[in-house]
Amino acid sequence: MKLEFKPIGVVHSPFKKREDIQPKKYANARGFDHIQGELEIYKEFEAGLKDTEGFSHLMVLFDFHLSEGFKLHTFPLLDDKLRGVFSTRSSHRPNPIGLTIVKVLERKGNVLKVSGVDMIEGTPILDIKPYIPRDQKSPIALGWLEGKIK
Amino acid sequence: MKLEFKPIGVVHSPFKKREDIQPKKYANARGFDHIQGELEIYKEFEAGLKDTEGFSHLMVLFDFHLSEGFKLHTFPLLDDKLRGVFSTRSSHRPNPIGLTIVKVLERKGNVLKVSGVDMIEGTPILDIKPYIPRDQKSPIALGWLEGKIK
Repeated sequence: MKLEFKPIGVVHSPFKKREDIQPKKYANARGFDHIQGELEIYKEFEAGLKDTEGFSHLMVLFDFHLSEGFKLHTFPLLDDKLRGVFSTRSSHRPNPIGLTIVKVLERKGNVLKVSGVDMIEGTPILDIKPYIPRDQKSPIALGWLEGKIK
Repeated sequence: MKLEFKPIGVVHSPFKKREDIQPKKYANARGFDHIQGELEIYKEFEAGLKDTEGFSHLMVLFDFHLSEGFKLHTFPLLDDKLRGVFSTRSSHRPNPIGLTIVKVLERKGNVLKVSGVDMIEGTPILDIKPYIPRDQKSPIALGWLEGKIK
Protein backbone atom coordinates (compact mmCIF):
# COMPACT_ATOMS: atom_id res chain seq x y z
CA MET A 1 0.00 0.00 0.00
CA LYS A 2 1.34 3.38 -0.98
CA LEU A 3 0.06 6.66 0.42
CA GLU A 4 0.48 9.80 -1.65
CA PHE A 5 0.74 13.25 -0.16
CA LYS A 6 1.55 16.62 -1.64
CA PRO A 7 3.17 19.73 -0.19
CA ILE A 8 0.79 22.46 0.96
CA GLY A 9 3.59 25.01 1.25
CA VAL A 10 7.24 25.60 1.91
CA VAL A 11 9.44 26.65 4.85
CA HIS A 12 11.61 29.75 4.64
CA SER A 13 14.49 29.45 7.05
CA PRO A 14 17.77 31.17 7.93
CA PHE A 15 19.34 27.72 7.46
CA LYS A 16 19.97 27.76 3.72
CA LYS A 17 21.70 24.42 3.51
CA ARG A 18 22.20 21.37 5.66
CA GLU A 19 25.61 22.51 6.89
CA ASP A 20 24.08 25.69 8.32
CA ILE A 21 22.43 23.68 11.09
CA GLN A 22 24.89 22.62 13.75
CA PRO A 23 22.57 20.38 15.75
CA LYS A 24 24.80 20.06 18.80
CA LYS A 25 24.75 23.81 19.21
CA TYR A 26 20.98 23.59 19.60
CA ALA A 27 20.90 20.40 21.65
CA ASN A 28 18.90 21.67 24.57
CA ALA A 29 15.21 21.86 25.26
CA ARG A 30 14.86 25.44 23.98
CA GLY A 31 17.62 25.34 21.39
CA PHE A 32 15.79 26.58 18.30
CA ASP A 33 13.24 28.76 20.10
CA HIS A 34 14.76 32.03 18.86
CA ILE A 35 15.19 30.97 15.23
CA GLN A 36 12.62 32.79 13.12
CA GLY A 37 11.31 31.80 9.74
CA GLU A 38 8.19 31.68 7.61
CA LEU A 39 5.67 29.06 6.64
CA GLU A 40 4.50 30.00 3.15
CA ILE A 41 1.30 28.16 2.37
CA TYR A 42 0.38 27.85 -1.29
CA LYS A 43 -2.46 30.15 -2.35
CA GLU A 44 -4.81 27.25 -3.04
CA PHE A 45 -4.65 26.28 0.65
CA GLU A 46 -4.50 29.79 2.16
CA ALA A 47 -8.14 29.73 3.31
CA GLY A 48 -7.24 26.84 5.62
CA LEU A 49 -5.01 29.19 7.66
CA LYS A 50 -8.02 31.13 8.97
CA ASP A 51 -7.91 31.20 12.80
CA THR A 52 -4.42 29.69 13.07
CA GLU A 53 -3.04 33.03 14.29
CA GLY A 54 -5.15 32.71 17.45
CA PHE A 55 -3.04 29.81 18.62
CA SER A 56 0.32 30.44 20.27
CA HIS A 57 1.83 27.21 18.95
CA LEU A 58 1.35 25.15 15.81
CA MET A 59 2.60 21.70 14.90
CA VAL A 60 4.26 21.58 11.51
CA LEU A 61 4.56 18.28 9.65
CA PHE A 62 7.08 18.38 6.86
CA ASP A 63 9.03 16.24 4.44
CA PHE A 64 12.71 15.63 5.25
CA HIS A 65 13.36 16.29 1.58
CA LEU A 66 17.15 16.02 1.81
CA SER A 67 17.02 12.71 3.66
CA GLU A 68 18.01 9.65 1.66
CA GLY A 69 17.44 6.16 2.98
CA PHE A 70 17.21 5.06 6.59
CA LYS A 71 18.68 2.65 9.12
CA LEU A 72 16.56 0.99 11.78
CA HIS A 73 19.43 1.35 14.25
CA THR A 74 21.10 4.73 14.26
CA PHE A 75 23.59 6.75 16.29
CA PRO A 76 21.60 9.71 17.61
CA LEU A 77 23.08 13.16 18.02
CA LEU A 78 23.36 12.92 21.79
CA ASP A 79 24.51 9.35 22.33
CA ASP A 80 27.28 7.02 21.27
CA LYS A 81 25.14 3.88 21.32
CA LEU A 82 23.01 2.56 18.48
CA ARG A 83 19.34 3.36 19.12
CA GLY A 84 16.15 2.29 17.40
CA VAL A 85 15.22 4.97 14.87
CA PHE A 86 11.71 5.32 16.35
CA SER A 87 13.31 6.35 19.66
CA THR A 88 15.07 9.22 17.88
CA ARG A 89 14.08 12.28 15.87
CA SER A 90 16.56 11.40 13.10
CA SER A 91 15.63 12.57 9.61
CA HIS A 92 16.57 9.14 8.23
CA ARG A 93 13.33 7.27 8.89
CA PRO A 94 11.23 4.75 6.94
CA ASN A 95 8.84 7.62 6.21
CA PRO A 96 10.93 10.81 6.29
CA ILE A 97 8.29 12.99 7.95
CA GLY A 98 9.47 15.64 10.37
CA LEU A 99 7.55 17.33 13.17
CA THR A 100 8.37 20.66 14.79
CA ILE A 101 6.24 22.75 17.11
CA VAL A 102 6.64 26.44 16.32
CA LYS A 103 5.48 29.62 18.01
CA VAL A 104 3.22 31.89 15.98
CA LEU A 105 4.43 35.47 15.67
CA GLU A 106 2.13 36.84 12.97
CA ARG A 107 0.09 35.87 9.95
CA LYS A 108 0.07 37.87 6.73
CA GLY A 109 -2.25 36.24 4.25
CA ASN A 110 -0.73 32.96 3.21
CA VAL A 111 2.42 33.42 5.28
CA LEU A 112 2.87 32.57 8.95
CA LYS A 113 5.85 34.17 10.62
CA VAL A 114 7.03 31.80 13.35
CA SER A 115 9.88 31.08 15.72
CA GLY A 116 11.36 27.73 16.70
CA VAL A 117 12.42 26.87 13.17
CA ASP A 118 14.78 23.89 12.83
CA MET A 119 14.01 23.14 9.20
CA ILE A 120 16.08 23.99 6.14
CA GLU A 121 15.07 26.56 3.50
CA GLY A 122 12.74 24.98 0.97
CA THR A 123 11.42 22.21 3.21
CA PRO A 124 8.03 21.04 1.89
CA ILE A 125 5.20 21.45 4.43
CA LEU A 126 2.68 18.61 4.69
CA ASP A 127 0.33 19.82 7.40
CA ILE A 128 -0.23 22.39 10.12
CA LYS A 129 -2.16 21.55 13.28
CA PRO A 130 -2.97 23.56 16.41
CA TYR A 131 -1.06 22.57 19.55
CA ILE A 132 -3.69 21.89 22.19
CA PRO A 133 -3.80 20.90 25.90
CA ARG A 134 -3.97 17.23 24.93
CA ASP A 135 -0.43 17.62 23.53
CA GLN A 136 0.99 18.88 26.84
CA LYS A 137 2.34 15.77 28.54
CA SER A 138 3.98 15.91 31.95
CA PRO A 139 5.82 14.37 33.65
CA ILE A 140 7.66 12.52 30.91
CA ALA A 141 10.38 9.86 30.91
CA LEU A 142 13.10 10.10 28.28
CA GLY A 143 14.71 6.68 28.05
CA TRP A 144 18.21 6.83 26.57
CA LEU A 145 17.91 10.62 26.33
CA GLU A 146 17.50 11.07 30.09
CA GLY A 147 20.05 13.53 31.45
CA LYS A 148 21.47 14.26 28.01
CA ILE A 149 19.41 17.39 27.31
CA LYS A 150 20.65 20.50 29.00
CA MET B 1 5.31 17.10 -6.62
CA LYS B 2 4.00 13.93 -5.02
CA LEU B 3 5.42 12.36 -1.90
CA GLU B 4 4.98 8.64 -1.37
CA PHE B 5 4.88 7.02 2.04
CA LYS B 6 4.05 3.53 3.19
CA PRO B 7 2.57 2.17 6.42
CA ILE B 8 5.08 0.82 8.93
CA GLY B 9 2.36 -0.84 11.00
CA VAL B 10 -1.24 -0.77 12.10
CA VAL B 11 -3.24 0.42 15.13
CA HIS B 12 -5.34 -2.01 17.14
CA SER B 13 -8.08 -0.14 18.91
CA PRO B 14 -11.26 -0.80 20.90
CA PHE B 15 -12.93 1.54 18.38
CA LYS B 16 -13.78 -0.93 15.64
CA LYS B 17 -15.60 1.48 13.37
CA ARG B 18 -16.03 5.21 13.01
CA GLU B 19 -19.34 5.22 14.89
CA ASP B 20 -17.66 3.73 17.98
CA ILE B 21 -15.91 7.04 18.63
CA GLN B 22 -18.23 9.64 20.08
CA PRO B 23 -15.85 12.58 19.98
CA LYS B 24 -17.92 14.88 22.18
CA LYS B 25 -17.77 12.31 24.96
CA TYR B 26 -13.99 12.66 24.90
CA ALA B 27 -13.86 16.42 24.33
CA ASN B 28 -11.67 17.31 27.24
CA ALA B 29 -7.92 17.55 27.66
CA ARG B 30 -7.58 14.02 29.02
CA GLY B 31 -10.47 12.43 27.17
CA PHE B 32 -8.80 9.43 25.56
CA ASP B 33 -6.10 8.92 28.19
CA HIS B 34 -7.62 5.68 29.50
CA ILE B 35 -8.27 4.10 26.10
CA GLN B 36 -5.80 1.28 25.56
CA GLY B 37 -4.70 -0.22 22.29
CA GLU B 38 -1.72 -1.59 20.44
CA LEU B 39 0.68 -0.30 17.84
CA GLU B 40 1.67 -3.33 15.76
CA ILE B 41 4.79 -2.53 13.77
CA TYR B 42 5.49 -4.74 10.78
CA LYS B 43 8.30 -7.23 11.32
CA GLU B 44 10.54 -5.54 8.75
CA PHE B 45 10.57 -2.38 10.91
CA GLU B 46 10.61 -4.04 14.35
CA ALA B 47 14.29 -3.30 14.96
CA GLY B 48 13.47 0.41 14.87
CA LEU B 49 11.42 0.03 18.06
CA LYS B 50 14.53 -0.63 20.15
CA ASP B 51 14.65 1.83 23.08
CA THR B 52 11.15 3.21 22.50
CA GLU B 53 9.91 1.54 25.68
CA GLY B 54 12.19 3.80 27.72
CA PHE B 55 10.09 6.82 26.81
CA SER B 56 6.86 7.50 28.66
CA HIS B 57 5.20 9.09 25.64
CA LEU B 58 5.45 8.57 21.90
CA MET B 59 4.06 10.60 19.02
CA VAL B 60 2.20 8.50 16.49
CA LEU B 61 1.74 9.77 12.95
CA PHE B 62 -0.94 7.91 11.06
CA ASP B 63 -3.07 7.98 7.96
CA PHE B 64 -6.71 9.04 8.40
CA HIS B 65 -7.55 6.14 6.10
CA LEU B 66 -11.33 6.59 6.30
CA SER B 67 -11.17 10.29 5.51
CA GLU B 68 -12.34 11.31 2.05
CA GLY B 69 -11.73 14.79 0.72
CA PHE B 70 -11.36 17.99 2.69
CA LYS B 71 -12.74 21.48 3.10
CA LEU B 72 -10.49 24.46 3.88
CA HIS B 73 -13.22 25.87 6.13
CA THR B 74 -14.80 23.37 8.46
CA PHE B 75 -17.14 23.23 11.46
CA PRO B 76 -15.01 21.82 14.28
CA LEU B 77 -16.38 19.53 16.95
CA LEU B 78 -16.45 22.19 19.62
CA ASP B 79 -17.64 25.26 17.75
CA ASP B 80 -20.51 26.38 15.58
CA LYS B 81 -18.44 28.72 13.43
CA LEU B 82 -16.51 27.81 10.31
CA ARG B 83 -12.79 27.55 11.11
CA GLY B 84 -9.72 27.15 8.93
CA VAL B 85 -8.89 23.45 8.73
CA PHE B 86 -5.30 24.09 9.87
CA SER B 87 -6.68 25.53 13.12
CA THR B 88 -8.47 22.23 13.79
CA ARG B 89 -7.53 18.58 14.22
CA SER B 90 -10.19 17.48 11.72
CA SER B 91 -9.45 14.28 9.79
CA HIS B 92 -10.53 15.98 6.58
CA ARG B 93 -7.29 17.74 5.65
CA PRO B 94 -5.38 18.31 2.40
CA ASN B 95 -2.96 15.62 3.60
CA PRO B 96 -4.98 13.32 5.88
CA ILE B 97 -2.19 12.71 8.40
CA GLY B 98 -3.18 12.33 12.05
CA LEU B 99 -1.07 12.86 15.14
CA THR B 100 -1.71 11.43 18.59
CA ILE B 101 0.59 11.33 21.59
CA VAL B 102 0.23 8.04 23.44
CA LYS B 103 1.55 6.73 26.74
CA VAL B 104 3.73 3.65 26.55
CA LEU B 105 2.59 0.77 28.75
CA GLU B 106 4.75 -2.08 27.49
CA ARG B 107 6.59 -3.40 24.47
CA LYS B 108 6.47 -7.02 23.37
CA GLY B 109 8.64 -7.47 20.31
CA ASN B 110 6.96 -5.64 17.44
CA VAL B 111 3.94 -4.55 19.49
CA LEU B 112 3.70 -1.49 21.71
CA LYS B 113 0.84 -1.54 24.20
CA VAL B 114 -0.20 2.07 24.76
CA SER B 115 -2.94 4.24 26.22
CA GLY B 116 -4.42 7.43 24.85
CA VAL B 117 -5.72 5.78 21.69
CA ASP B 118 -8.17 7.85 19.62
CA MET B 119 -7.60 6.00 16.36
CA ILE B 120 -9.83 3.41 14.74
CA GLU B 121 -8.91 -0.29 14.39
CA GLY B 122 -6.79 -0.82 11.31
CA THR B 123 -5.40 2.73 11.09
CA PRO B 124 -2.11 2.66 9.13
CA ILE B 125 0.85 3.95 11.13
CA LEU B 126 3.34 6.20 9.32
CA ASP B 127 5.86 7.03 12.02
CA ILE B 128 6.63 6.87 15.72
CA LYS B 129 8.72 9.54 17.43
CA PRO B 130 9.76 10.07 21.05
CA TYR B 131 8.02 12.92 22.87
CA ILE B 132 10.79 15.11 24.26
CA PRO B 133 11.09 18.29 26.39
CA ARG B 134 11.10 20.42 23.23
CA ASP B 135 7.51 19.27 22.65
CA GLN B 136 6.31 20.54 26.03
CA LYS B 137 4.99 24.03 25.35
CA SER B 138 3.57 26.21 28.10
CA PRO B 139 1.79 28.52 28.47
CA ILE B 140 -0.24 28.15 25.30
CA ALA B 141 -3.03 30.20 23.71
CA LEU B 142 -5.88 28.36 22.06
CA GLY B 143 -7.59 30.82 19.75
CA TRP B 144 -11.16 29.80 18.94
CA LEU B 145 -10.80 26.78 21.21
CA GLU B 146 -10.15 28.89 24.31
CA GLY B 147 -12.55 28.00 27.10
CA LYS B 148 -14.17 25.22 25.10
CA ILE B 149 -12.10 22.35 26.49
CA LYS B 150 -13.19 21.15 29.89
